Amino acid sequence: MNLNLSSILRIIGLVLMVISIAMLPSFLVSLIYGETDVARAFASIMLLAVIIGLIIFKLCQYNAKQLRVRDGFLIVTLCWLVSTILGSIPFIVTGSIPSFTDAFFESASGFSTTGCSILTDIEALPKGILFWRSFTHWIGGMGILIFAIALMPSLGISGQNLAVSEAPGPSLDKITPKMSDTAKILYVTYILFTILETILLMLGGLSLYDALIHTFGTVGTGGFSSYNNSIAHFDSAYVSVVITVFMVLCGINFNLYFVSLRGSFRVFLEDTEFKFYIFSFLAASFFILITIMHGNPSENAGDAVIDSSFQTASILTTTGYSTTDYEQWPAVTQMVILILMFMGGSSSSTSGGIKIVRVVIILKLIRRGISTRLHPNVIETIKLNGKQMPVDTVSAIANHFFLYIAMIFFGAFIVSFENVDLVTCFSSVITCLGNIGPGFGAVGPSENFSALSALSKWILSIYMIAGRLEFYTMFVLLMPRFWSSNH
Amino acid sequence: MNLNLSSILRIIGLVLMVISIAMLPSFLVSLIYGETDVARAFASIMLLAVIIGLIIFKLCQYNAKQLRVRDGFLIVTLCWLVSTILGSIPFIVTGSIPSFTDAFFESASGFSTTGCSILTDIEALPKGILFWRSFTHWIGGMGILIFAIALMPSLGISGQNLAVSEAPGPSLDKITPKMSDTAKILYVTYILFTILETILLMLGGLSLYDALIHTFGTVGTGGFSSYNNSIAHFDSAYVSVVITVFMVLCGINFNLYFVSLRGSFRVFLEDTEFKFYIFSFLAASFFILITIMHGNPSENAGDAVIDSSFQTASILTTTGYSTTDYEQWPAVTQMVILILMFMGGSSSSTSGGIKIVRVVIILKLIRRGISTRLHPNVIETIKLNGKQMPVDTVSAIANHFFLYIAMIFFGAFIVSFENVDLVTCFSSVITCLGNIGPGFGAVGPSENFSALSALSKWILSIYMIAGRLEFYTMFVLLMPRFWSSNH
Repeated sequence: MNLNLSSILRIIGLVLMVISIAMLPSFLVSLIYGETDVARAFASIMLLAVIIGLIIFKLCQYNAKQLRVRDGFLIVTLCWLVSTILGSIPFIVTGSIPSFTDAFFESASGFSTTGCSILTDIEALPKGILFWRSFTHWIGGMGILIFAIALMPSLGISGQNLAVSEAPGPSLDKITPKMSDTAKILYVTYILFTILETILLMLGGLSLYDALIHTFGTVGTGGFSSYNNSIAHFDSAYVSVVITVFMVLCGINFNLYFVSLRGSFRVFLEDTEFKFYIFSFLAASFFILITIMHGNPSENAGDAVIDSSFQTASILTTTGYSTTDYEQWPAVTQMVILILMFMGGSSSSTSGGIKIVRVVIILKLIRRGISTRLHPNVIETIKLNGKQMPVDTVSAIANHFFLYIAMIFFGAFIVSFENVDLVTCFSSVITCLGNIGPGFGAVGPSENFSALSALSKWILSIYMIAGRLEFYTMFVLLMPRFWSSNH
Repeated sequence: MNLNLSSILRIIGLVLMVISIAMLPSFLVSLIYGETDVARAFASIMLLAVIIGLIIFKLCQYNAKQLRVRDGFLIVTLCWLVSTILGSIPFIVTGSIPSFTDAFFESASGFSTTGCSILTDIEALPKGILFWRSFTHWIGGMGILIFAIALMPSLGISGQNLAVSEAPGPSLDKITPKMSDTAKILYVTYILFTILETILLMLGGLSLYDALIHTFGTVGTGGFSSYNNSIAHFDSAYVSVVITVFMVLCGINFNLYFVSLRGSFRVFLEDTEFKFYIFSFLAASFFILITIMHGNPSENAGDAVIDSSFQTASILTTTGYSTTDYEQWPAVTQMVILILMFMGGSSSSTSGGIKIVRVVIILKLIRRGISTRLHPNVIETIKLNGKQMPVDTVSAIANHFFLYIAMIFFGAFIVSFENVDLVTCFSSVITCLGNIGPGFGAVGPSENFSALSALSKWILSIYMIAGRLEFYTMFVLLMPRFWSSNH
């Protein structure tokens, strides 16, 4: 055992303080809406957590030189666990979600931007608590550590080692030399989107509170709403369209925004992942439109266009908002939804799933595999955006896919101890691992996760966090070799 | 276009003759049971097909030197298609299965050793037809072409180019220098198993006819029975145990039998795939035993042991016989059945599925992938049975897995046009691609495939053959480059 416990604890102290301070807006919301008990709860939690965080931070010394790759894995996993536990405390102490299992599930769903819930009556909860619940999406969307990374250069370390396990999706290009610069650019874009969507939703007649809640759910591609029937509550084409647009925008690789600002918009058209993403969105929307119009010819065509594009964007970007219950749609439409669930959005976006770029590479690998049978002596390389992919990256993508499939089977096996149908077993795992939200069967869009057993809730909570961290970060910790001394 | 059409047609002529002659036992069965119409049908088909085959064979000249890898792919695929079509004719002309779609499905299910059926009342069919239906399993089990390969040296070609696309599973070792020798050894073992099981089943009170039908279904890991409720018809523990033993034996790599005869039985214990296979069988049987005893404590323990090991062997070896309706079992038991469906039996056995050796390699790849994250600079090779695996083989296995998953999604998408539930869509495709037989939902063990649409039946028929040929053989033909002239 050779871990830099002191350095690790110091970062955890920092995260405790950051998450505590992040409760400030929720505290203010409680005050504004006169929820004194809730405000008092937030104040106590914040005070306590900041003090504990500060003590840990001050007691533990930083030793930058000793920090290695393996420490990064431990730090990231611990920070997510600590944040999730801290995030669940407001639910428990206000009595909104009395059970720790349920509160942890809800907090994990929030931070991981999954958006599935154990709540049966969302509207019964205090406004301050609902605000916190949605705000965890916003924090989680960009990664808890991105804040820490941004602060780290001032603490004397480069965040490179940490960032490897935190960045969503395979990072194929380094665009900025310093990690903190990248972090700044990403969250400036993120904040801009947040402000813009909030204003647009308010123009649609939403209160600032409602606009913020649903903006957090959109830009973080989370999917928590403050209403029991999600976006269908507003019954507004304008609101649906605004949310659709921002879901699509937040499923795009954020680096493209940055590069296009410095250069031209051509970078979008030169990016294979972007083209495949937009093509998938348009093709699936169109297909779903046709199937629902075919199944129900009396439906208004305009409504059908809005519904199909909304639901496609919601699932493809792994947001999970709903305006309709897609389980009422024909089987072939549900099948398309399921395929979108697997794909997910782009790398370096706030979305989950396998990620488009990986799907593209795997399709290229399949193509090459068939071709190799025909010409065993011809060696073809895998190219992306015209550039040859390093063998290591291709290999990592393949392994990610294997692990994804293996985790789905393992998770579904655990959930099947519930004795629910196979659709529920698999879709609950797929939706949590892909950070989507609703699934099919007993966890469909008109249902929730409250009826599941504690065992299932725990495995699904861990899956949500594992999915957000792209697994490896957590799995590395499960290897005996990680804990052996000789590193 | 540069294909050796003449050589290809000559082989097809040969296959036509071989399959026609293979109808002889069914013709005799019809005669013995006094089914004159059926016997007359078989006689006409045989006569016609032999004449056509002979004419093609005589007209087309063989040019061994020009035969290349790509011709092999076309030959194998065409031979399977021709055999399946020829095999479906007795069903049609006797009026047993009047529809060509249904007859082709049943014939594809037979030759591919899948064992799923569109028949709702099996027992209503003439005995000669049922014998032919099961005999296709026996032919398919070892590969139609293995007969042809065995004949080929006498025709002046080595079968190497053909065998590449025909052998079930990745062949990791060449055990005999000449393909025809391998073929001989494999079918000697196969015939020995057939004789042995037939005798043992007759000792259990079965008629020679019933014993042969169920032996064909077992050794070919097919699963067709002559009774509506499959093996449950006999209601005999002895019969169940005999069939379980032979299913397990036929799911083992046949090369191991050969090597052990020349050496010692230690080769079994040194083979990772064998160990994993036996472990999976024992572990799954034990797990299923516990779950069904837990769900129904009043059940006789002895019966439960027989049921659980029978069903485990039946699914793991992709045979598909049933003694109980596993859809009545708890969800977690069904989940184990589903996982076994994916795995399948050993390479170079008569079973289907992904094959144990590939599952082992993929688990090793996952393990390496996690380890690489921790030690990015350490290069680990993948070993099997203590020997380093060639990178090409590992890559081919990975590609096979990707294609398997992609084909499942594509197939389920096509089947979902039926508007059946998601479980039926996926399990029908999984069971056909893996050459298993029964699935879940509307294609479960107590149901059949008759209610599906023609579109679904055709895609599933193609999937059965594709699964038997391990895909690539057929997919290569779909590449435009295959048909371009410059090879």
